[in-house]
Amino acid sequence: MKISISDYLLSQLKRYGITELFGVPGDYTLSFLDVVEASEDVKWIGCCNELDAAYAADGYARIKGMGAISVTYGVGELSAINGIAGAYAERVPVVAISGAPAAQAVKDKLAMHHSLGHGVFNNFRQMYAAVTCAQTALNYCDAQRQIDQILLTCYKEKRPVYIEMPSDIAKLEIEIDHHAIPDMAYGESNDESLQQFILDVQKLLDTSKAQMVIADFEVERFGFKHKISHFLDKVKLPAMTMNMGKGVIDETSEYFVGIYLGKISEQAVVDVAMHSDLALVFGGLFADTTTEFTHVNNAMRFVEVHPYYCRIGETIYSNIFMGDVIEALSDLQYHTDSVVASYTPDTFEPTDEDITQKRLYEALASTLPEGSIFIGETGTAFYGSVPMRLHGVCRYIGQALWASIGYAMGAALGSSIADTDNRSYLLIGDGSFQLTAQTISTIMRNNLNTVVMLINNNGYTIEKAIHGRTKHYNDINMWKYSELPKVLNMDDNASLCFKVKSERELINALNQAAATTDKMIFIEMLLAEFDMPWVLEHLADSMKSSDKF
Amino acid sequence: MKISISDYLLSQLKRYGITELFGVPGDYTLSFLDVVEASEDVKWIGCCNELDAAYAADGYARIKGMGAISVTYGVGELSAINGIAGAYAERVPVVAISGAPAAQAVKDKLAMHHSLGHGVFNNFRQMYAAVTCAQTALNYCDAQRQIDQILLTCYKEKRPVYIEMPSDIAKLEIEIDHHAIPDMAYGESNDESLQQFILDVQKLLDTSKAQMVIADFEVERFGFKHKISHFLDKVKLPAMTMNMGKGVIDETSEYFVGIYLGKISEQAVVDVAMHSDLALVFGGLFADTTTEFTHVNNAMRFVEVHPYYCRIGETIYSNIFMGDVIEALSDLQYHTDSVVASYTPDTFEPTDEDITQKRLYEALASTLPEGSIFIGETGTAFYGSVPMRLHGVCRYIGQALWASIGYAMGAALGSSIADTDNRSYLLIGDGSFQLTAQTISTIMRNNLNTVVMLINNNGYTIEKAIHGRTKHYNDINMWKYSELPKVLNMDDNASLCFKVKSERELINALNQAAATTDKMIFIEMLLAEFDMPWVLEHLADSMKSSDKF
Repeated sequence: MKISISDYLLSQLKRYGITELFGVPGDYTLSFLDVVEASEDVKWIGCCNELDAAYAADGYARIKGMGAISVTYGVGELSAINGIAGAYAERVPVVAISGAPAAQAVKDKLAMHHSLGHGVFNNFRQMYAAVTCAQTALNYCDAQRQIDQILLTCYKEKRPVYIEMPSDIAKLEIEIDHHAIPDMAYGESNDESLQQFILDVQKLLDTSKAQMVIADFEVERFGFKHKISHFLDKVKLPAMTMNMGKGVIDETSEYFVGIYLGKISEQAVVDVAMHSDLALVFGGLFADTTTEFTHVNNAMRFVEVHPYYCRIGETIYSNIFMGDVIEALSDLQYHTDSVVASYTPDTFEPTDEDITQKRLYEALASTLPEGSIFIGETGTAFYGSVPMRLHGVCRYIGQALWASIGYAMGAALGSSIADTDNRSYLLIGDGSFQLTAQTISTIMRNNLNTVVMLINNNGYTIEKAIHGRTKHYNDINMWKYSELPKVLNMDDNASLCFKVKSERELINALNQAAATTDKMIFIEMLLAEFDMPWVLEHLADSMKSSDKF
Repeated sequence: MKISISDYLLSQLKRYGITELFGVPGDYTLSFLDVVEASEDVKWIGCCNELDAAYAADGYARIKGMGAISVTYGVGELSAINGIAGAYAERVPVVAISGAPAAQAVKDKLAMHHSLGHGVFNNFRQMYAAVTCAQTALNYCDAQRQIDQILLTCYKEKRPVYIEMPSDIAKLEIEIDHHAIPDMAYGESNDESLQQFILDVQKLLDTSKAQMVIADFEVERFGFKHKISHFLDKVKLPAMTMNMGKGVIDETSEYFVGIYLGKISEQAVVDVAMHSDLALVFGGLFADTTTEFTHVNNAMRFVEVHPYYCRIGETIYSNIFMGDVIEALSDLQYHTDSVVASYTPDTFEPTDEDITQKRLYEALASTLPEGSIFIGETGTAFYGSVPMRLHGVCRYIGQALWASIGYAMGAALGSSIADTDNRSYLLIGDGSFQLTAQTISTIMRNNLNTVVMLINNNGYTIEKAIHGRTKHYNDINMWKYSELPKVLNMDDNASLCFKVKSERELINALNQAAATTDKMIFIEMLLAEFDMPWVLEHLADSMKSSDKF
């Protein structure tokens, strides 16, 4: 059976769970987009610009497993590249498909538009090599193998990949060898390496008095949230997440202690960490914005479990797979004397006082319905919401490492498209919102019921926390935020907008949001300029005295 | 005298004519921005996002000679990189200053935020190597020489450069050697090479019956607009520009014929080109979007003059400088039998009919005041305005080669800041506007009187012209464009907004704009979806049948 290269690509994207494709059309991609428009596998989601599209594909991938964008040569792919770099840093599998000039133009080194004019056509692909784990320029003779190989790599590495689709081959038909399509599989562990690792963990346990668990973002990316949950049910150890992996452990479970933030961790975390001498860390990264490279307990020993290898001190155990490791570790005996306080959900009684950062997160923690997706933008929104207890099986999206402001707006579009059954709640600061504000147009255009909660506190408060508290460079222009949705869409009925200042107004708006599930909700919240969540204050203090910064 | 590295950088930016710095703050740039805020040399212009800032710096540089941005490591520099690539393609000297982590973090390969987390810190600088002509990572020991060298390179090459400013050295003080600061100079021609070139041009003239001149963008970038004007006064040859260089020749002058577009050129250009057998081309690039690689007269011979070399056929004359070449060429004898029709400015009598693409450009040509800067966005705006006769010494900004939609909005911010005496008129399509719409907030924040004229024709009409006329991927979400300025600024008085459909309404709005010079003017114009300017129609037809595309 012969099908076009584009059709084959779309069929394989669908196989990996991708049923929506984000992007902006460009003339080198129009042949491909013809096929997309006719496709039953994948639906086109046109975005206002390419960076929004990349952010959306990242948010989508975090919920659905994999995501994709289609952009045009040069101008489009370079506009998107920051979003793809973020996906690389935070291990999110996004397929970046870029249209390119036809073979003849490349061969003749012509000054084509969207090129630098000097006849070089591989330079942008090379730039993508720094922020993707694989790159391929499709050719007619080998297209199936190229597509098979690169999508499997994306899936296995949980990093973005780059596919160049020359405009003149997008509709060419190729014969598909269905037997050649590789299985979706992460690979199998090396038995010897796994046994040695378990033996060495056992040795540590023999001299350890109490253990604890830290589960971080790689667990979520590789789909082992449930496996970790079963592991905890069996071993009954106190467990923490890090801020990159918030949501990996059910925050209402009896094992959950809190967020491990190194020396600035909250008291419950400090108590457990001081009582423990061995930490099993699943899929974690110690970064300046997660722990500031500090630990609560300097006597703690660490066992690190990564997707394809483990580490104890300087010893690396290669070719062993996280899924197998979790199972093998669950057969060992553990002990802890830490007492985890049983969790009772907060109730929130609104007053007529102005909303503060502290009360905002209390209000949200008590209000968000079970199953919600929460997106916390870098800034006060992220650091404020990190310690907030999520109810039920809520999923959390944030960018602790890459920390690109503006990301969360696009990610909320992506998560809203990825899961229309459970609502996406975005919390974003005003400074961040101004980078990618037009994304709310795409949300309304697709009739999504995203709840956009905007913190209007007059500028880049996270920067003010770190440096230049009263400097003008940390100021922004004031907008009439709550009026924007009605302007970026013709149908006034596509959004319900609020501007709130008091706790009671906030709760009223959130209640109306809960009762209005067929449109976008936009809540502008007025907060004081220098009111900051405690994690951000502590982290900023730590950064100010750092020599790394 | 000791001054900080940042202060020295700012003083040297000013020396090259840069008195405003565009950007977005980020925590690796805050020490540098402290110095900027205290500086009397350079003023900070905070933008909504980094791509807008890069576009603004490009537009600024096209008017003022050089421009600069300051962005933060990773997230900021990658968001800006498409704008810098455009500056490279179109030879616009923009200095990209990126803040970076401190030396200690780099040395220890730490997982710093805004990095990919794997301890590599030179990858983004390497990406910039593809789109800048020089890159440097400042170090304390050698900072003056690094700054001197890279700014001179930017000035001489008319291409962007990249400066990495580690956060821990921004405020360190260095001793400045004022004698070591290099002169701003393009260099001198090699006499022998220049004489050989002139001899060979003379040989061509000996067998040529009639000559013509094409002056393109490099003439403008290297500041030889006046030299070319004097050259034409002396040699009295008919002259054309190409669309990348529109505005290089005074379009009301007695020598000006029109825009050379290859085989789709308008009749006056065709007539002259068919009467001529030799063309002197100053600073030109033949690209798909300028001539579709065609010529009017296939018997024409070409003499190409570039900034630092010339070419006749396959012979290259190196190390000769355009300024010297123009002077040497003006001493030769030329002849033409082409008659250039004397130009009388059009008058425009508005009717009550709906505005069409054709009538729009007639209206603008008759209305724009002398000295205006016109910015034409890629799409119908660019291809429609290219044949429009500009009055007086108007300057024109467009991106014929890089053609990044959204660019013109940022460029208009930049040109408005660069020249507050002459007004910037931006013409932009709705699809393009949605990419970078927030820039109007920055225009109002800075009390600029930019005239923003938005073509609302329901989607990406340029794409519809080329491919997929009725496909949904070329649609966009409809906005209430003319209401946007009042929402993106608190002071309703900072803008005057119109929504017009008829010619009379348009002229009324333009007249009010002329009478209101203290605020931004925003004119939303309703045009038919498939109404296209003739250049775009012809170019699209040519592209459709091309094998390069």
